[in-house]
Amino acid sequence: MAYLNGAFCSAADARISPFDRGFLFAHAAYEVTAVYGGHLVDFGGHIARLGRTLAGIGIPNPLSGDGWGKVHRDLIAFNDLGEGLIYLQVTAGSYGLRDFAGPEEFEPTVFLYADARPLIGTAARDGVKVIFLEDTRWKRRDMKTTQLLSQALAYRAAREAGADTAFMVEDGRVTEAASANAWIVDDAGHLVTRDLSPSILPGITRAGVLDLLEGSGIRLVERAFTPDEAQQAKEAFTTSAGAMIAPVVAIDGKPVADGRPGPVTRQIQRLYYQAMGADVAAVDAVDGVPHPALLSW
Amino acid sequence: MAYLNGAFCSAADARISPFDRGFLFAHAAYEVTAVYGGHLVDFGGHIARLGRTLAGIGIPNPLSGDGWGKVHRDLIAFNDLGEGLIYLQVTAGSYGLRDFAGPEEFEPTVFLYADARPLIGTAARDGVKVIFLEDTRWKRRDMKTTQLLSQALAYRAAREAGADTAFMVEDGRVTEAASANAWIVDDAGHLVTRDLSPSILPGITRAGVLDLLEGSGIRLVERAFTPDEAQQAKEAFTTSAGAMIAPVVAIDGKPVADGRPGPVTRQIQRLYYQAMGADVAAVDAVDGVPHPALLSW
Repeated sequence: MAYLNGAFCSAADARISPFDRGFLFAHAAYEVTAVYGGHLVDFGGHIARLGRTLAGIGIPNPLSGDGWGKVHRDLIAFNDLGEGLIYLQVTAGSYGLRDFAGPEEFEPTVFLYADARPLIGTAARDGVKVIFLEDTRWKRRDMKTTQLLSQALAYRAAREAGADTAFMVEDGRVTEAASANAWIVDDAGHLVTRDLSPSILPGITRAGVLDLLEGSGIRLVERAFTPDEAQQAKEAFTTSAGAMIAPVVAIDGKPVADGRPGPVTRQIQRLYYQAMGADVAAVDAVDGVPHPALLSW
Repeated sequence: MAYLNGAFCSAADARISPFDRGFLFAHAAYEVTAVYGGHLVDFGGHIARLGRTLAGIGIPNPLSGDGWGKVHRDLIAFNDLGEGLIYLQVTAGSYGLRDFAGPEEFEPTVFLYADARPLIGTAARDGVKVIFLEDTRWKRRDMKTTQLLSQALAYRAAREAGADTAFMVEDGRVTEAASANAWIVDDAGHLVTRDLSPSILPGITRAGVLDLLEGSGIRLVERAFTPDEAQQAKEAFTTSAGAMIAPVVAIDGKPVADGRPGPVTRQIQRLYYQAMGADVAAVDAVDGVPHPALLSW
């Protein structure tokens, strides 16, 4: 079941006009919210960011926070969704014309659907491999828009190289991963992630992890890091709503440390999963196979 | 009448899936070809560039040059199109999922429609006003993709400022106009337009104008120019398939020279319109009003 412009329908039957500005101009905002145990994770953060993106690209916000909450909860109920994602896209709408400027006031297109999938799965357990790629994205990456061609091509290039995703590099520094924020544990044992700016997305999972660090004993430094630092890091991981905390075990063909998820990464996974109400013991049985690294949690 | 995935249909009835990668990721190429006197203008250039864009973003070209030609000519015939544009978009298709990498091989979505409009209209006669805006686009502007949000926002910002379009500025140089190449006549009387690189679109109308300069007595320099140079230029204009050669008569609130289209611009308009078979005398009667600047051609 999906939601399109005020009505629920089968996702397979949902249809829009090719004159939609989301299709013609990538004039659209989107959000992806995790659902765990039937509950929305960090929902307030996603809806606040949606509001900022819409304001930044001139689209009126078609629903209030409560309104968005109701549509999300209805989708969870209609799809009996325990674990997965709710995808949400708001475009500048369609009016039967292709015209760059468009009307003074837009009537947005609203599309949501539910995607059942394990969030704490094999990537969380075994980690992912990344490659380096030049960051070719537009300059306002702080807004979560559907200008995602660089990211789509990055995932395809990673797959061709036998990897899972990419660290994007600009001016000699890693910006972020293809659709996730990037983190390392550096020489000094500090947890490092890039400081917020228009160069990266202000991740909701990133913010959630920052909140959890207080009292954890982990010392954080927000700064950009180089590709070399990433390859020589003691640990690396990514954060996103879809993959949550994903250990990075190899970078451009070189293992990170001993090639297994490290202790800081595991501590942050545990903190985050517990904060969202996950039964951490359940993680040990991903794919039905007990896993040594997780048995030691 | 439009064309969607092999069939002709009413443009108002055309529908696509919101899972189309053109809608979700801006994973799509497009072209806009001018039609004048019922004939396609510079069609070979557009189809060659479409092939390059598709190759660059990993989408198989669904039709041959002849195939594209037939669809375009059918749309011209079905719509009895004398003067206007054919819009063409090819996306990486839809497969009922949202997944950045997608399948190994895409089955493209193909959408075309015909847009009847005057190409040699009031903008060609009276000129356009531009403002300066920071160029926030992605780094592969040499590929004509639907990552057009910066351009859409630029047109809206221009309208709000009482102008028609924008000159995009990056690193202290004009890249191009919001959806057109930018040209000036500099102090030395040379015609200047930016040299090709991934920073700008290799315009088909730009290439057409370059071809016509031979023997014209106009001396061309391909180089980037600054915003200051643009404001102090003797003349300025833009080139695009939709607006062809559009004189720029004001830049960021300052008139270009005396605020009227200049002689080099007029000469290039005349050369271009004549090359595509236009009756230049007809231009004088745009909107039914004879216009002094054009009467002197």
